[in-house]
Amino acid sequence: MAGSTFATGRRTLARLLAPLLCLALAGCASTPLRGTGDLGVVIERASGSVQIVDNSHAQSLARVQGLGDLSHASVVFSRDARYAYVFGRDGAISKVDLLAARLVKRVEQASNSIGGAISSDGRVIAAQNYSPGGVKLFDADNLQLLSSVSTAAFGGGESKVVGLADMPGNRFAFALYDSGEIWLLDASTPSAPKVQRFEHIGKQPYDGLASSDGRYFIAGLYGEDGLALFDSWHADAGVRRILAGYGRGRQALPVYKMPHLRGWSIAGDYAFLPAIGQHEVLVADNRSWAQVATVPVLGQPVFVMAEPGGRRVWVNFAFPDNDKVQVIDVPTRQVIKTLQPGRAILHMEFTPRGDAVWLSSRDDNKLLVIDTATLTVRRTLPALEPSGIFFSSRASRMGM
Amino acid sequence: MAGSTFATGRRTLARLLAPLLCLALAGCASTPLRGTGDLGVVIERASGSVQIVDNSHAQSLARVQGLGDLSHASVVFSRDARYAYVFGRDGAISKVDLLAARLVKRVEQASNSIGGAISSDGRVIAAQNYSPGGVKLFDADNLQLLSSVSTAAFGGGESKVVGLADMPGNRFAFALYDSGEIWLLDASTPSAPKVQRFEHIGKQPYDGLASSDGRYFIAGLYGEDGLALFDSWHADAGVRRILAGYGRGRQALPVYKMPHLRGWSIAGDYAFLPAIGQHEVLVADNRSWAQVATVPVLGQPVFVMAEPGGRRVWVNFAFPDNDKVQVIDVPTRQVIKTLQPGRAILHMEFTPRGDAVWLSSRDDNKLLVIDTATLTVRRTLPALEPSGIFFSSRASRMGM
Repeated sequence: MAGSTFATGRRTLARLLAPLLCLALAGCASTPLRGTGDLGVVIERASGSVQIVDNSHAQSLARVQGLGDLSHASVVFSRDARYAYVFGRDGAISKVDLLAARLVKRVEQASNSIGGAISSDGRVIAAQNYSPGGVKLFDADNLQLLSSVSTAAFGGGESKVVGLADMPGNRFAFALYDSGEIWLLDASTPSAPKVQRFEHIGKQPYDGLASSDGRYFIAGLYGEDGLALFDSWHADAGVRRILAGYGRGRQALPVYKMPHLRGWSIAGDYAFLPAIGQHEVLVADNRSWAQVATVPVLGQPVFVMAEPGGRRVWVNFAFPDNDKVQVIDVPTRQVIKTLQPGRAILHMEFTPRGDAVWLSSRDDNKLLVIDTATLTVRRTLPALEPSGIFFSSRASRMGM
Repeated sequence: MAGSTFATGRRTLARLLAPLLCLALAGCASTPLRGTGDLGVVIERASGSVQIVDNSHAQSLARVQGLGDLSHASVVFSRDARYAYVFGRDGAISKVDLLAARLVKRVEQASNSIGGAISSDGRVIAAQNYSPGGVKLFDADNLQLLSSVSTAAFGGGESKVVGLADMPGNRFAFALYDSGEIWLLDASTPSAPKVQRFEHIGKQPYDGLASSDGRYFIAGLYGEDGLALFDSWHADAGVRRILAGYGRGRQALPVYKMPHLRGWSIAGDYAFLPAIGQHEVLVADNRSWAQVATVPVLGQPVFVMAEPGGRRVWVNFAFPDNDKVQVIDVPTRQVIKTLQPGRAILHMEFTPRGDAVWLSSRDDNKLLVIDTATLTVRRTLPALEPSGIFFSSRASRMGM
């Protein structure tokens, strides 16, 4: 059942009565008017639900249920920041109305999927699929299928698609796990998208990320060391290898969890990224991509996320250290704080201008709102095995 | 009269009737629910009004009147992107509800002012004043005065304040025109803000800007060449001079309009900035601040604004070339297009992910929505002598 509101803040008599009176009137909102710039969605992985939250007042607004298998899920937002598109592990896309707190539409579009993106004009949703592979494009308004892009190799099956990210000009970049390619898809005419292929970019790309200006696309490689860098301003130059020492190939260390590539950050002039299988955060120059330093941390890093101002970088960890979070001071590259906020800290999301960071503690069934100035817990909120946290300010960002 | 709606899009019978029925019900919205991530405000300078616009559908939604002297005006947005705070030339702050299309409150807080900012937590509005000088802090909810920060020199009058910008941690940076200083104001406790002063930064700073991560503050100098750079990560190192050749001191060229410093852009690894009094855009390395190139343009540049993806830079001009706009390709640093969209093009605003740019043509009383992919006019909208255009996605940005 979608849309049960369980926390609404201040109530006046008028506000309690108004919804009852309004429900009968088509076109009349039963919810008071509110802005959508400070809303967010929290994935509740075990229950197939999301919580809608308000990051100005650090409160939960509602729970929306019926979203299916959210054991891996990601979220993008409509251009007006009213709707969240939730991509579930089961290949479904769920469109959630954040104002009315209800599931507007749900489309089962693949049997196994790990995410998607929204075009720069906000009109097209792209889903990247594992099984079957390929990319599908949908109308963002009604989730009607606009086209399917096959990733089948000559005579082979569809390649799994990973790392899909939006680029300027209604384009999407993504990597093909099985065939070792990066594709740039132009969805300006979404019923007839055009593909530019870059082959032999490396073995088994397993994830990808775009730079925040949408210029670069970087794919991580599972089958060999290093990363594949594509510069969309110089597409003719093809794809080149960077950070040759980065990967899992060289080291025999057990890897408890392959870090998401999206857990990278640019802070100041440097990229901070999780070393794979090692207790280190790597620091690379964001122009040359040469590694310039390592920062020792207490476990295997998963997400390495810079505050919006870039002054500090927050790190969470793989099991067995996933109850801790460390904070790195960027100028000195030193850990300045270790927090132990709860069991199984799976994700972190900063408020748009960085006054707070929200953490999800899956095994303690709670969200923590931490004040970034004092590094203290400002509030905890109950949640059902929360994982990803996504704020609506992402609506105006590229490379999501 | 505030709030007259003159364009609402599709109308249904229910939607026409609903407001009439709803008006009697406190707490029940007379406007349909809508997201606020794609709204904007256009200053109509001669009539003291603003237009509320929708940048997804390129349409006007409403006009709000009664905002006073908007011959120079700037706008910031509430954290939830529902409200716009308009700073007028006459020292007034007007809080406009974008959903209800009405003026919520108007405070006359100085006799001459040129702008303000909102704190990183969204709770404090800071106004920078010319006459009398100083900075005032207001509660963002109700516009109650929280404190006044005097900029009076020992035995002298209040210094004019320029370039005020928000920095992370509820801080504001600004420059003092008369005493040649940069101040960093910590408004974490807005009733008792703390000031850090940097003296002797250069003669007559006339404007300032913050970097998009809120780390740097740069002041332009009217009384001498060069710019003053403050690095908030290394405040102890004080303020240093950059781009020594930048300014109006060396050249005897007439300057038709001092460019706004906020008309700078970072695109790729470079800053693009308007040369003062010359028909050039300057290109500087954004790490070393060394000038690396100039791009010849057809007139004296005013705003030099990068598309959100940084791939191209758009330039408008001072009189007599203010009917033209040029587009620079960033990798080749060449002008690739000259547009002549209307008389007196005063401002440009990109949609958050850059699919369009809106231009204001004051003397043709129109707005132009230009498709950045095709460089053609997608739509024109009537407006009363429009100047500044501000989209609500600014709510989640720093250094505004």
